[in-house]
Amino acid sequence: MSYKKCDYKNLKELCNNVFERFGYNKEDSNIITDVLLMADLYGIESHGIQRLVLYYNGIKNGRIKVNSKMKVIKETPLSVLVDGNKEMGQLVSKNSMDIAINKAKISGFGMAVVKNSNHFGISGYYAKMAADQGFIGISMTNTQAVVLPTYSKRRMLGTNPIAISMPAKPIPFLLDMSTSVVTRGKMEVYSKNNEPIPEGWALDEEGKIITDSKKIIEITDREGLGGILPLGGHSEKFGGHKGYGLGLAVEMFTSILSGGFTSDNVRFSKGVDGVSHTFIAIDYGMFGDKNEIEKRMSDYMQKLRDSEKVQGASRIYTHGEKEIEAYNDRIKNGIPVNQNTIKEIEDICDYLKLDIARYK
Amino acid sequence: MSYKKCDYKNLKELCNNVFERFGYNKEDSNIITDVLLMADLYGIESHGIQRLVLYYNGIKNGRIKVNSKMKVIKETPLSVLVDGNKEMGQLVSKNSMDIAINKAKISGFGMAVVKNSNHFGISGYYAKMAADQGFIGISMTNTQAVVLPTYSKRRMLGTNPIAISMPAKPIPFLLDMSTSVVTRGKMEVYSKNNEPIPEGWALDEEGKIITDSKKIIEITDREGLGGILPLGGHSEKFGGHKGYGLGLAVEMFTSILSGGFTSDNVRFSKGVDGVSHTFIAIDYGMFGDKNEIEKRMSDYMQKLRDSEKVQGASRIYTHGEKEIEAYNDRIKNGIPVNQNTIKEIEDICDYLKLDIARYK
Repeated sequence: MSYKKCDYKNLKELCNNVFERFGYNKEDSNIITDVLLMADLYGIESHGIQRLVLYYNGIKNGRIKVNSKMKVIKETPLSVLVDGNKEMGQLVSKNSMDIAINKAKISGFGMAVVKNSNHFGISGYYAKMAADQGFIGISMTNTQAVVLPTYSKRRMLGTNPIAISMPAKPIPFLLDMSTSVVTRGKMEVYSKNNEPIPEGWALDEEGKIITDSKKIIEITDREGLGGILPLGGHSEKFGGHKGYGLGLAVEMFTSILSGGFTSDNVRFSKGVDGVSHTFIAIDYGMFGDKNEIEKRMSDYMQKLRDSEKVQGASRIYTHGEKEIEAYNDRIKNGIPVNQNTIKEIEDICDYLKLDIARYK
Repeated sequence: MSYKKCDYKNLKELCNNVFERFGYNKEDSNIITDVLLMADLYGIESHGIQRLVLYYNGIKNGRIKVNSKMKVIKETPLSVLVDGNKEMGQLVSKNSMDIAINKAKISGFGMAVVKNSNHFGISGYYAKMAADQGFIGISMTNTQAVVLPTYSKRRMLGTNPIAISMPAKPIPFLLDMSTSVVTRGKMEVYSKNNEPIPEGWALDEEGKIITDSKKIIEITDREGLGGILPLGGHSEKFGGHKGYGLGLAVEMFTSILSGGFTSDNVRFSKGVDGVSHTFIAIDYGMFGDKNEIEKRMSDYMQKLRDSEKVQGASRIYTHGEKEIEAYNDRIKNGIPVNQNTIKEIEDICDYLKLDIARYK
């Protein structure tokens, strides 16, 4: 599968115009576009513009309600429970993390729990929002169930990502990870590229190892058995029960606290939607001088990067480093977009009567 | 290696008497004993009475200071920073989690960050303290560095466990996991039993896969290279960078926030000690009716346990279930203790002039 490098500014204008055609105002279009393209800038193709078609379909089938607004249901000085009212996930999430950050500014801690929302893009975007303002940021979401509990062949859990971020120099700490061995989005990219997936990522309907990327995408798109394995793999030997437990913990923090749908009840295909998110901001100034704490984090991360490499390894990374390097490169040299994705974007532009040539 | 079943009450009396001989009063001896034996009752042999010798050595060499008391350095309504002053880890930790719980009772959230402490036993003990009082409990600790960052052959991170607990019926949620593919304690048990470890748990000094359990214990006991792999294994293919990132996140929450030693600077053998812990309690009543939230968690966990099993699997567990079943069995039928551990206990009793026959 070939890629075409697209200029960031052109893609941004394209996305903004697409979302405005969908009925969003300029400010909201900008937020949605920023979250979406940040994934591409960070090199996380799976969650970037290749998912434009997902949002397009969501709006067409009413899963995402364009004119809906999130509503605060319950609030304390430290907490807020939000009903997303099927608003676009990026808007609900940006606003909810802003509330959590504001509470942390006043009280030291803020936590927003959200139900009835939609796909929010990359989890790391929201965790980093907090870090950019000098807090530890945590964000989580449940998703449609695609992950198997240890020793189960029914997918019961979402890929349930956790992101954690904290300021550090020269590169902030930004961990953004699904609690499964791999994300569904990454398998979508394998499928678009006609590549097999490695043994140990997923099981088929009969609970057997599967390597056909197209087939596993089909399996997880329809009702039935089979799915992705939790981080640590298919048994307890290498800690599969840990990935399963982390996925369950994310479910607890999102759908269980919010009263939203648990992942096994989220069915995008049926329009029975509503994922749940949680956003946390912690002011680490509660524990000491913030500059000193940040310096300790920066120094330790540098030591990790400087430690002795195994044979054949070129570098030891800390989390967030690859993303920042990809960002710098792509802002300058453009974002590689898969030809299949370009075809999807062309179809959307056709439908919306947007002249794609303008953005090329 | 053969095991002998020992009565819980006898082991409890034995441990209490050992800790009293070390100079602890009855109340403190009881706390230390309770944490230690809870591991054995939960079936987590690696962190139970087999570690008595570790505490015994720690007290003998001054790493654990018997008459020291932890001190609060900084406090807000939501937070406390504690200097453990090299007190026994279980006592520092029980007290610090109590502080976090009390803050959550008043404000909805409490977080205690601790430096200069010692081994605290099983992380789950403290998370479950919070769950037992109707809170979400989280506990973490760093440890002596035994874990390799992805593509590094120098151990820079501890096994850095995270425990998360929440009430549910009939069995509470209790996830207690190291962020490495396996704990050092588990490898200690393999070593005591003269069994090889699986390929994919650890690398030797040259960064190559190692299966010799005695050798990997030796390697991690002395200065140098080699160590345990993070959850997800040795590369990014199966998510090793995620386990590495979780370990780093635990380091951030413990040593970085507290200003204690990062795992790479913790050297038990040199008496340069001081691990850091973090304890969090969250009142989920901030987000809705607590009974309803607990019911949602109970129902979802039941659905997980009831989902379709892969061929050959006898059960699907939720986290905490094995522990509660082991607890019920061992209270009734006794705790299996490794003969090597019994020999170690006999030596300690000899030294302390305790008559081991009394506890048999």
